[in-house]
Amino acid sequence: MNPLPSWRPGQARTAVLDFLAAARDLPAEQRVAYFDNDGTLWCERPTYVQWDFLVDQLRLRVAEEPSLAQEPEFAAVLEARREAIESIGLARIAVALAGLCAGLTPEEFVGRVRDWTATAVHASGRAVRALVYRPMCELIDLLRTEGFTVGIVTGGGAEFLRAVSAELYGVPPDRVVGTSVGYRLTDGDRGTVVLRRTARIVGDANEGAAKVTNAQTQLGRRPIFAAGNSAGDAELLRWATAGPGPGLALLLDHDDPEREFAYDGRAETFTASEPVTVTADRLGWTRISMARDWDQVFAD
Amino acid sequence: MNPLPSWRPGQARTAVLDFLAAARDLPAEQRVAYFDNDGTLWCERPTYVQWDFLVDQLRLRVAEEPSLAQEPEFAAVLEARREAIESIGLARIAVALAGLCAGLTPEEFVGRVRDWTATAVHASGRAVRALVYRPMCELIDLLRTEGFTVGIVTGGGAEFLRAVSAELYGVPPDRVVGTSVGYRLTDGDRGTVVLRRTARIVGDANEGAAKVTNAQTQLGRRPIFAAGNSAGDAELLRWATAGPGPGLALLLDHDDPEREFAYDGRAETFTASEPVTVTADRLGWTRISMARDWDQVFAD
Repeated sequence: MNPLPSWRPGQARTAVLDFLAAARDLPAEQRVAYFDNDGTLWCERPTYVQWDFLVDQLRLRVAEEPSLAQEPEFAAVLEARREAIESIGLARIAVALAGLCAGLTPEEFVGRVRDWTATAVHASGRAVRALVYRPMCELIDLLRTEGFTVGIVTGGGAEFLRAVSAELYGVPPDRVVGTSVGYRLTDGDRGTVVLRRTARIVGDANEGAAKVTNAQTQLGRRPIFAAGNSAGDAELLRWATAGPGPGLALLLDHDDPEREFAYDGRAETFTASEPVTVTADRLGWTRISMARDWDQVFAD
Repeated sequence: MNPLPSWRPGQARTAVLDFLAAARDLPAEQRVAYFDNDGTLWCERPTYVQWDFLVDQLRLRVAEEPSLAQEPEFAAVLEARREAIESIGLARIAVALAGLCAGLTPEEFVGRVRDWTATAVHASGRAVRALVYRPMCELIDLLRTEGFTVGIVTGGGAEFLRAVSAELYGVPPDRVVGTSVGYRLTDGDRGTVVLRRTARIVGDANEGAAKVTNAQTQLGRRPIFAAGNSAGDAELLRWATAGPGPGLALLLDHDDPEREFAYDGRAETFTASEPVTVTADRLGWTRISMARDWDQVFAD
């Protein structure tokens, strides 16, 4: 039986299967695999899915409270003024947008994300739930079959992805690490306590070196397998190959304008000194060519 | 078959079984249970196990570097001067002791903890690995059989407990939340990165309200079951009963001087306004009497 039916024979597929064969004799606790999400497990162009969700939240809020549209961060988004967005900065706008959900309980927030993803259509024209890369889902399943603990280490909001990670990838919320919102504890009924989201981000955005320190802090183990697609994943991939035993770093190269997009993985929020594909070759990571290595990209 | 063989018939055992019956129809993602560790899953008297480990690390370091014994925090410990320890404060001393492991990689730290727990004997006279409460292990197994995700939310160091949580309780490292040490990223061989512990604690110690905010941030779900034994667990237990559906808060009452210890669960680091057993009765939590409800305390 072919364990990776959407993968074409080639260097990437062989590297994965060779790695799994080499890892089979390791103690179970060392079999740990972490994936980036945006651009690695699902499509991130032309917009991040979470961005679309937040813009939708903004439109709903502005309908109730029109004066919000005057805030510079929100005006730039609503009028889709690229220069204004770039001059304010995507990161600052994303924090402002996430602040629109301040006051919600975590359960209310999960409900909103699920309601939205159930029907939302991405700017690429696909349903949001159909943005997932089929070959990556096969790879996650295979890793799990081989006794790996599979986690996701995303630059996006942890709670956003957790709302759908089990459904999309079979990854439970406690194995998702992302950018963290601050919570405040309030008194509930009958002597209980209730958490409410704040407008504050805790610590650094989960990109670059923070992906490594946050994954260690929250998941407690170094991976021997990591997959990413951008300069913001470089440290995570460098960490996966740091041990004396088998280690595999996979970089997805978006080189498929026919079926998806063609772009290099320079993270927009980072000043990367080289395209991450060059880093990959320099450090001996395995590159996945979407155009050549994948027989099918989306699940359909 | 009796699913809780070390539990005597009584209010506590009945409350657990009634709760599990009520939770059986809930969606799997809501079946989440968190336990405190020290004094809830294993014995914390006369000393915290992690304290013994850190003091042992101190003795090893002082043998190499005798001048360390002059530091006020360390002198108080080595000379076992109770007033000095109390005047400096346990929390500050614990941070200073944990700082002795700065520079270690997470893997080196895990190795040290495991080497120590393999043979260490606790001040109570038992082997450290035999400090685990048998009825609580049965309860964890039963929750897991009922489809619960089981996590541990400890006031102690996350990485200390993670080193042994799978062996002692079958709980993997990614489901342990505790007080977090800071890491710094350093360059390793062949373009890799390596984490090293610092002497810094990240955020607040994982006690009280921080148990709730950290558990949400790291595990992403509210529990419907929580077990604790001290005032530092009160918020966690209040959180477990905050939902509209079934919820169970269990408080272990150390009332068994014959087989263990008798003390009230006022956390030493907190100024609790009442014994936590009084809080339990006021808020309708279920109290476990070690003396009456447990047929056997330790595994032997």
